Amino acid sequence: MPNPQLNANGELIHLLSTEGLPREILTHILDTAATFVGITDREVKKVPLLRGKSVFNLFFENSTRTRTTFEIAAKRLSADVLNLDITRSSTSKGETLLDTIDNLCSMHADMFVVRHATSGAPYLIAEHLKRMGKHDIHVVNAGDGRHAHPTQGLLDTYTIRHFKRDFSSLTVAIIGDILHSRVARSNIHALKTLGVPELRAIGPQTLLPTRLSQMGIRVFHDMRAGLKDCDVIIMLRLQNERMNGALLPSVGEYFKHYGLSPEKLILAKPDAIVMHPGPINRGVEIDSEVADGSRSVILNQVTFGIAVRMAVMSILAGNG
Amino acid sequence: MPNPQLNANGELIHLLSTEGLPREILTHILDTAATFVGITDREVKKVPLLRGKSVFNLFFENSTRTRTTFEIAAKRLSADVLNLDITRSSTSKGETLLDTIDNLCSMHADMFVVRHATSGAPYLIAEHLKRMGKHDIHVVNAGDGRHAHPTQGLLDTYTIRHFKRDFSSLTVAIIGDILHSRVARSNIHALKTLGVPELRAIGPQTLLPTRLSQMGIRVFHDMRAGLKDCDVIIMLRLQNERMNGALLPSVGEYFKHYGLSPEKLILAKPDAIVMHPGPINRGVEIDSEVADGSRSVILNQVTFGIAVRMAVMSILAGNG
Amino acid sequence: MPNPQLNANGELIHLLSTEGLPREILTHILDTAATFVGITDREVKKVPLLRGKSVFNLFFENSTRTRTTFEIAAKRLSADVLNLDITRSSTSKGETLLDTIDNLCSMHADMFVVRHATSGAPYLIAEHLKRMGKHDIHVVNAGDGRHAHPTQGLLDTYTIRHFKRDFSSLTVAIIGDILHSRVARSNIHALKTLGVPELRAIGPQTLLPTRLSQMGIRVFHDMRAGLKDCDVIIMLRLQNERMNGALLPSVGEYFKHYGLSPEKLILAKPDAIVMHPGPINRGVEIDSEVADGSRSVILNQVTFGIAVRMAVMSILAGNG
Repeated sequence: MPNPQLNANGELIHLLSTEGLPREILTHILDTAATFVGITDREVKKVPLLRGKSVFNLFFENSTRTRTTFEIAAKRLSADVLNLDITRSSTSKGETLLDTIDNLCSMHADMFVVRHATSGAPYLIAEHLKRMGKHDIHVVNAGDGRHAHPTQGLLDTYTIRHFKRDFSSLTVAIIGDILHSRVARSNIHALKTLGVPELRAIGPQTLLPTRLSQMGIRVFHDMRAGLKDCDVIIMLRLQNERMNGALLPSVGEYFKHYGLSPEKLILAKPDAIVMHPGPINRGVEIDSEVADGSRSVILNQVTFGIAVRMAVMSILAGNG
Repeated sequence: MPNPQLNANGELIHLLSTEGLPREILTHILDTAATFVGITDREVKKVPLLRGKSVFNLFFENSTRTRTTFEIAAKRLSADVLNLDITRSSTSKGETLLDTIDNLCSMHADMFVVRHATSGAPYLIAEHLKRMGKHDIHVVNAGDGRHAHPTQGLLDTYTIRHFKRDFSSLTVAIIGDILHSRVARSNIHALKTLGVPELRAIGPQTLLPTRLSQMGIRVFHDMRAGLKDCDVIIMLRLQNERMNGALLPSVGEYFKHYGLSPEKLILAKPDAIVMHPGPINRGVEIDSEVADGSRSVILNQVTFGIAVRMAVMSILAGNG
Repeated sequence: MPNPQLNANGELIHLLSTEGLPREILTHILDTAATFVGITDREVKKVPLLRGKSVFNLFFENSTRTRTTFEIAAKRLSADVLNLDITRSSTSKGETLLDTIDNLCSMHADMFVVRHATSGAPYLIAEHLKRMGKHDIHVVNAGDGRHAHPTQGLLDTYTIRHFKRDFSSLTVAIIGDILHSRVARSNIHALKTLGVPELRAIGPQTLLPTRLSQMGIRVFHDMRAGLKDCDVIIMLRLQNERMNGALLPSVGEYFKHYGLSPEKLILAKPDAIVMHPGPINRGVEIDSEVADGSRSVILNQVTFGIAVRMAVMSILAGNG
């Protein structure tokens, strides 16, 4: 089966997952993003690369923050952005997802940014576009179920490259609820492809997938052991719905074992960076002193996130 | 009483209904739309015709799809589009509709796109603008109660002309809940003015208005008889609220009698086209095989709808 | 303590309140607004002053009308406008206000337009930006609790100057629920600074603050006495929540005593102007005959409001 993200020339036409993307494409996205980091610092932050293009934000799952980052990225590329309030739209009148897509294609949409609670929904859309011969309409996965959140994976990767330059000697730890995290999954695939030699997963057994070791990831239930000699620490957000669930004893207990405090941070390398996809739960998975401290690159991630999304959109728009 | 849609020179200043519009104006809109069909296919889909103009979407009745089509059309004309979330706004604080309009006029609105559950609301606004001497502010009716949905009527007309070239020898059937349909009403007026010789209404007695025959429309309760020799089949959406009401026995029963299946479609002319304003209810008023089949022009309607709305907006903006 | 609205050179970097703004700055805003009044009358109502800037509307308290005026103003300055649906966003996921601000800053926001139910929230944001060294990000207070609504105060001031030319001999009466009104507060500070010699407050004792006389404002409970020889009458909106409260006997009673009727208006100067921040409650605080009459400048206020907001935004954007 051919990779649905690439066309016959091996060029990126959809961004659905970091899984299966060749190293050259990942690197091309990161290199392109680097050119946009400068633009967002300029007086006039716009470039005309997507002028006259129509980008549709299709958020079947509400996320003001992620939608905003895509909206900013698209507007800075001079695209027209259409936010569809899906929960109030035809799909709630019983129209199928693919009928909605067909309709928007007929309005000459150029790009769909899709968030959906169901894993695989953006793939369904991409396959459908291919079947309909719509080769110049592109899909960006903005998070699908527990499956993937590739722009988050790429912005994390960008951030790591920015601060550490070279992936080939890094130890990266991902900490928290990896089982339910599309962010973790997207990070793992990108970092492995880019050659990170040691990836660690740290968390309670109930929040870790079972097949991590088979993927070559070292598993730690003891955070102190897991943090030792790490270059990069990626904290995950603890979803509210987990806190009261059967999977965790209590927030206090969780923080004690898996919250990133200054005392635990000291076990990592002296120049280790601390990352988090946000929004952060202060005092739940991360201590304020760490979140706001000199090792934290959490806000850099946000800045790079805009540049990475601009890069993805402009690369896709250039490929048919 | 002068036609509130036309100025003293007979030029279109508001689009409120297809009823009462002279044939030359209908044809002018369709001809102008044809010039925009090409534009939406271009790399850069924008023209500067409404640059610096402020278009307000006033949707007192929620419709994400229709609002989106107007938003796209306005943005491709380079207008600034303001979406007012009316249900959360001052009108819900007890402000009258006309006070809201006065306020927006004072903000130098150039155009109002109005959807309202009450028939006649866009007329009220147009009359008020005239009374206030606001001759350069235009109203587009995006659907008012059961009364009219003129841009839908025009895009249907455009679609028919595109595929059939000439109105003067056509048989057009409209099928379904004509009684509650502003789309049907707008189609009937436009098609009669453009010279369609035979218009048919097909549906159960409970869903057809009583005065159709007086309007020169042939009424059929038997869909098979009504479809015979048709060139154009316009299916209407069956509103969910009708399905459980007293007007219809059951969805299955409705589909059996009035759903467009391949078996029934065969009774129309071999080159008959199938239309539907969307969103479609698959298996309720139309079979998937027909909706997705070679005779269906449902998605062409959507494409032409953007061009028609661009045409209407640009014509209005040019007339004072 | 230095004025948080001004930088070290005494230039305006945030608009938080009319209180404490020097007369030269108020005058500069009004003079700048005058240059924009002409622009909004032009065919193309846009100027490129904020091109490539990102303006974020952060409405923690819903106000479609005020948000719309800022959105129009920003778009006419060619800014990119991002409306954040705060009630559905991360802040409702437990993220703190300042974490939200930090995130938006990291996306290279240029300006925050903030409405918040808590008095002082925009100050908190401005102080935080200063602490973080973000000197080129600006805050505009679009209404905070009962505290201030400075753009409303400035547009009222603009309207008065437009019609009366000179502040130095005016008698201005503010009528209604001054106790709960951020509009009244912002007007009082601006008008005093600009040299209005006589400011009057008219209303029932329950709706007037106690310290008005200490501020040099003449207090009237008898509206007829208070209106005598006034040049400017500023009516306030009676909030619905007051009407059923313990503070007022009944709407009818209120209108009888403090509603502006033609009979009462006659007591003011023959060329007195009538103002209201809108939306108006016809028959509650103002008679329709007065609201729509020749002395009413209520809709002029709306028009000038756009120009004043354009002026504020463009001045802020020019100061670092």
